[in-house]
Amino acid sequence: MQTTVRSASKEVTIAPDRPIVIIGERINPTGKKRLAASLAEGDMSRVRTLAEQQVANGAHILDVNVGAASVDEVALLPMAVKAVQEVTDVPLCIDSPNAAALKAALDVYEGKPLINSVNGEEASLKRVLPLVKEYGAAIIGLTMDDSGIPATAEERVAVATKIVERAEALGIPREDILIDCLVLAVSADQTAAKTTLEAIQGVRDQLGVNMTLGASNVSFGLPDRENVNAVFLAMAVATGVNAPIVNPTHACKTIMAADLLLGRDEFAMNYVTYCRRIARAQKG
Amino acid sequence: MQTTVRSASKEVTIAPDRPIVIIGERINPTGKKRLAASLAEGDMSRVRTLAEQQVANGAHILDVNVGAASVDEVALLPMAVKAVQEVTDVPLCIDSPNAAALKAALDVYEGKPLINSVNGEEASLKRVLPLVKEYGAAIIGLTMDDSGIPATAEERVAVATKIVERAEALGIPREDILIDCLVLAVSADQTAAKTTLEAIQGVRDQLGVNMTLGASNVSFGLPDRENVNAVFLAMAVATGVNAPIVNPTHACKTIMAADLLLGRDEFAMNYVTYCRRIARAQKG
Repeated sequence: MQTTVRSASKEVTIAPDRPIVIIGERINPTGKKRLAASLAEGDMSRVRTLAEQQVANGAHILDVNVGAASVDEVALLPMAVKAVQEVTDVPLCIDSPNAAALKAALDVYEGKPLINSVNGEEASLKRVLPLVKEYGAAIIGLTMDDSGIPATAEERVAVATKIVERAEALGIPREDILIDCLVLAVSADQTAAKTTLEAIQGVRDQLGVNMTLGASNVSFGLPDRENVNAVFLAMAVATGVNAPIVNPTHACKTIMAADLLLGRDEFAMNYVTYCRRIARAQKG
Repeated sequence: MQTTVRSASKEVTIAPDRPIVIIGERINPTGKKRLAASLAEGDMSRVRTLAEQQVANGAHILDVNVGAASVDEVALLPMAVKAVQEVTDVPLCIDSPNAAALKAALDVYEGKPLINSVNGEEASLKRVLPLVKEYGAAIIGLTMDDSGIPATAEERVAVATKIVERAEALGIPREDILIDCLVLAVSADQTAAKTTLEAIQGVRDQLGVNMTLGASNVSFGLPDRENVNAVFLAMAVATGVNAPIVNPTHACKTIMAADLLLGRDEFAMNYVTYCRRIARAQKG
């Protein structure tokens, strides 16, 4: 199963036998005071910087999220999409729960984007899936619904199945759906990561779709978060996630090694090239 | 399935629902000039130091290997076992292909050791399994035979099955067998790690035995070996390895995070305690 997204000039394909696709998570004001402040003033300079940095550090797709309590997303999201398109040529993942903001951003996007996200709630399915169909986009489906995030892997697979069926009923092809099995902080619930890994396995076996994962939450509240994130990312991609949403600066070395170990890096060329580039960058 | 090994005063249990057991790999002269030189002189001081260091860094069991071209293993292996028993109280993994050396070491060992190793070769099975039975030891079975290391996961599972059947026929209980699915350098063969992960899955599903893995070879010839080893270790323990043979100094932080993520560390106590200990040690 192949998911293809495009910018005006670049195509990125997500598929189980291809190298992992890195979706950069950093254009998101949650917990980032400097970005939040500049967005509140309609200033896109920080968005541009984060876009350029993430692509330089290995991102293949950039998530663009401007959501904060005080901002007008309908005005800001298309501004941010345009700003990122000005400085990078990678495809974008347009991230908002607000259908009007999504529509405004889709109107200025050049290519075939990812939309982040729909979930199993009736209201979400009715609001987002028609936009996905209308704009010919690809979509991230979150395994949660009106009752929140299900406690068991089986229930999450059931929500994923519902999303896929509802999308297909509207004529959205299955290959344009990425499922995110969601992970909660393991500090609060020690079975959280295990449940997510089981759900990933279930989605892979039963639906065969490509998968993303916002993986950094897993380490919330723990010491040495980067270590926990790296170990979880290695487990998640070995289980079936092939387009994780991560901070590329931290995740890239794990992902390059994972591709090599999963047999997707002939002659270890990508890994060796990556290590040389990092060594050069560290020398100055 | 529970594998229990013992020193004179300490018991270690390997089981799928328990925290990962770390077998320290460093008492092995291969590639270690200083250890090789001291062993050649019958000097056990370096062996003692490596034993103490590894236990301080988190090893639960220590592998003891003195094999080198010029040494008399029958004399040296029991000396090394005694030296390690003098300075640590963890159970040992007695490591030699030489049956006479194994027997001499078993004679001085206090407790129930692991023996490393038997493989699927007829000569190996006949030489080693009777010793395992006679001394009531546990045994590591390597998935290789007269034709070398099989290229496919299925063939490795078949060798593991043969070892388990031959051991059981001698009255060695299945829970006293750890299987090592073996991993070759991924720099030489980019499918090497993937094949091993598939074999681990197969052994878990079909035999249900506990598993070890000498995991550090996978990164031979690559830059940033520690990164490749950590990512592979995370994948291997998520797939079913629960007593890897590793350098505890490098592997411990990956293993502590893996236990937490696999739901084996209630309230994240072990991980948090470990991080605090490392932080204190780094401060001086």
